[in-house]
Amino acid sequence: MAVRLSGKEVAARLDEETGRRANALTQRGNVPTLAIVRVGQRPDDLSYERTVTKRAERLGIAVRPFALPSDASQEELLDVIETVNADAAIHGCLMFRPLPRHMDEKAVCDALSPGKDIDGISAASLASVFAGEGTGFAPATAQACLEMLDFHGVELEGKRMAVIGRSLVIGKPVAMMALARNATVTLCHSKTRDLANVMREADVVICATGRAKAYGAECFGAGQVVLDVGINFDEEGNLCGDVDFAAVEPLVSAITPVPGGLGSVTTSVTLAHVVRAAETMG
Amino acid sequence: MAVRLSGKEVAARLDEETGRRANALTQRGNVPTLAIVRVGQRPDDLSYERTVTKRAERLGIAVRPFALPSDASQEELLDVIETVNADAAIHGCLMFRPLPRHMDEKAVCDALSPGKDIDGISAASLASVFAGEGTGFAPATAQACLEMLDFHGVELEGKRMAVIGRSLVIGKPVAMMALARNATVTLCHSKTRDLANVMREADVVICATGRAKAYGAECFGAGQVVLDVGINFDEEGNLCGDVDFAAVEPLVSAITPVPGGLGSVTTSVTLAHVVRAAETMG
Repeated sequence: MAVRLSGKEVAARLDEETGRRANALTQRGNVPTLAIVRVGQRPDDLSYERTVTKRAERLGIAVRPFALPSDASQEELLDVIETVNADAAIHGCLMFRPLPRHMDEKAVCDALSPGKDIDGISAASLASVFAGEGTGFAPATAQACLEMLDFHGVELEGKRMAVIGRSLVIGKPVAMMALARNATVTLCHSKTRDLANVMREADVVICATGRAKAYGAECFGAGQVVLDVGINFDEEGNLCGDVDFAAVEPLVSAITPVPGGLGSVTTSVTLAHVVRAAETMG
Repeated sequence: MAVRLSGKEVAARLDEETGRRANALTQRGNVPTLAIVRVGQRPDDLSYERTVTKRAERLGIAVRPFALPSDASQEELLDVIETVNADAAIHGCLMFRPLPRHMDEKAVCDALSPGKDIDGISAASLASVFAGEGTGFAPATAQACLEMLDFHGVELEGKRMAVIGRSLVIGKPVAMMALARNATVTLCHSKTRDLANVMREADVVICATGRAKAYGAECFGAGQVVLDVGINFDEEGNLCGDVDFAAVEPLVSAITPVPGGLGSVTTSVTLAHVVRAAETMG
C-alpha cells in the first residue's frame, strides 16, 4: 500500500507561516490584499472563489472581488486589471481562466503588473520560470507540486520525472521547476507513443491532463511517487483525479489522493504569494 | 554507415530564399540591416562576426557593427542597445554573449526591442518560445536544429527526443520547439543519472553541452538521428562536436558533422530572421 500524500498537513504548514507573516504586515498597517477577478458565473470558479476567500480571511488576508458579466468586453476587463495595477493597497491578483472566447487571454494576462501576478500568468512570470531564475511568481499549481514533494522529503536531484500534460498552467512550468532542481524531466502529452512505458521509466510522475481516471495500473510500478493534479468527475459524479487511484495505489510508493491532495496546497501557495507580494511592495 | 546531415544544402536553401526577399526589400528602398554588438575582442566572436558579415553582404543584408571595449560600462552598452532600438533603419540585432561579468546580462537582453530580437535573447522572446506561440524569434541555434530535421524529412510527431544540455540559448528552447511539434522530449544535463541509457531510448538526440567528444558509442544505437550542436576543440586543436563522431557514425541512422553541420545553418537562420524583421517593420 502506498503512502498517501495528503495535502492537509502541507497546506497547514504553509498557512501557519502565511498567517504569521500576514499578521506582521497588518500590524505595520499594510493589510495583505488579494484581488479576485472573475468573468461570468462558472460554478467551478464560484466554488473556488468561496474556498480562497474563506481561507484568506482565516489567515488575515483581505479579498477584493471584481466580478464581470460573461458578455463583458475585453476593454472592461482591461479596465479592471488597470484598477488592480494602480491600487497600491492590492498586492496580488487571481484571475479565473479560461476567459470568454471573445477576449484575447494572453493580452489580458500580460496587462497584469508582474509584481502582482501571484499566479504566474504573464509573459514576464513565464519567462522567469523558463529561465529558472526564481524571480517572479510561479503558477500556483506547479509550485504546489514541489511543496508536496518537499514536505514529504522526496528529493528530485538526479531523479527521472515524467510530466503528463503540457499546459502553461502546470505541465510546462512544473517541468522547468523540476529541471531547476536537477531532475531529468520528460514532457508527455496526447501524442506521446507508448505512454505507459514512458511513465513507468520515471521515479516521479505528475499527471495533469484533466482526463478522469485515465492512467491505470499499466502506467505505474513499484517505487514511484505519483502526483495527481487532475480535478475531474467520474461517471457517478464523484470528484476524482487523472489517475485511477484504486488501481494504482497498491502498486506505487506514494500517491496524492483527489480530493485531499494538491488542491488545498495550491490555495495555500496562492495566499503565500499574496503575502510575499505585500512584503515586497510594503 | 550513417547519413551525414550536412548543413551546406540546408543553409543554401535558406539563403536562396533570404537573398530573394532581401532583394525585394531593397528594391522597395528598405535595405534589411543587422546590428552586431560586440563587447571586447574574443577570437570566437571576431571570427563569427566575420562569417556573418560576409554571408550577410552576399545576401544583400547590410551590417552595422557596434564594438565596445571589454571594460565598457553597462550604461555604455545600454546606450548602444537604445541606439539600435531607436534606429528605424536597423531591423535586427545580434549581440555576442556571455557579456563581461560586471554587466547584468539579463537586463541588457531585456532592453532590446522584441521586434529586433532576432536571436531570441529577451524575456519576451523566451516567453513566446515557452508558450509555443510562434510569435517573436526563436534562438537561432535552436531553430537551426529544426531546419536541419525538416530539410532531411525527419518527422518529430510522436518521436522521443533527448536534449542534452539545458541552456536558454539552445537546450530549453529546442525542447519547447520540439514539444510544439508533438515530440516527447526528455531534458538531460550534468546531473542526469545513467545518461547513456536515457540517450539510447530516444529517436532523436540533440547534444548541446559544449563538451568535446563527450558522448561516445555507449550513448547511441541503431536508427537514431543525432544533432551535434557543440563547437569545441579536441586535444590536437581540431574543431569537434560534443559527439565522438568517429565512434558514433557507424552506429546511428543519421548524424550532423562538426564542422559542416549546424553552424552554418545557424548563420542562415539569423539572417532569415533579419529579413523577416525588416518585412514586418517595413
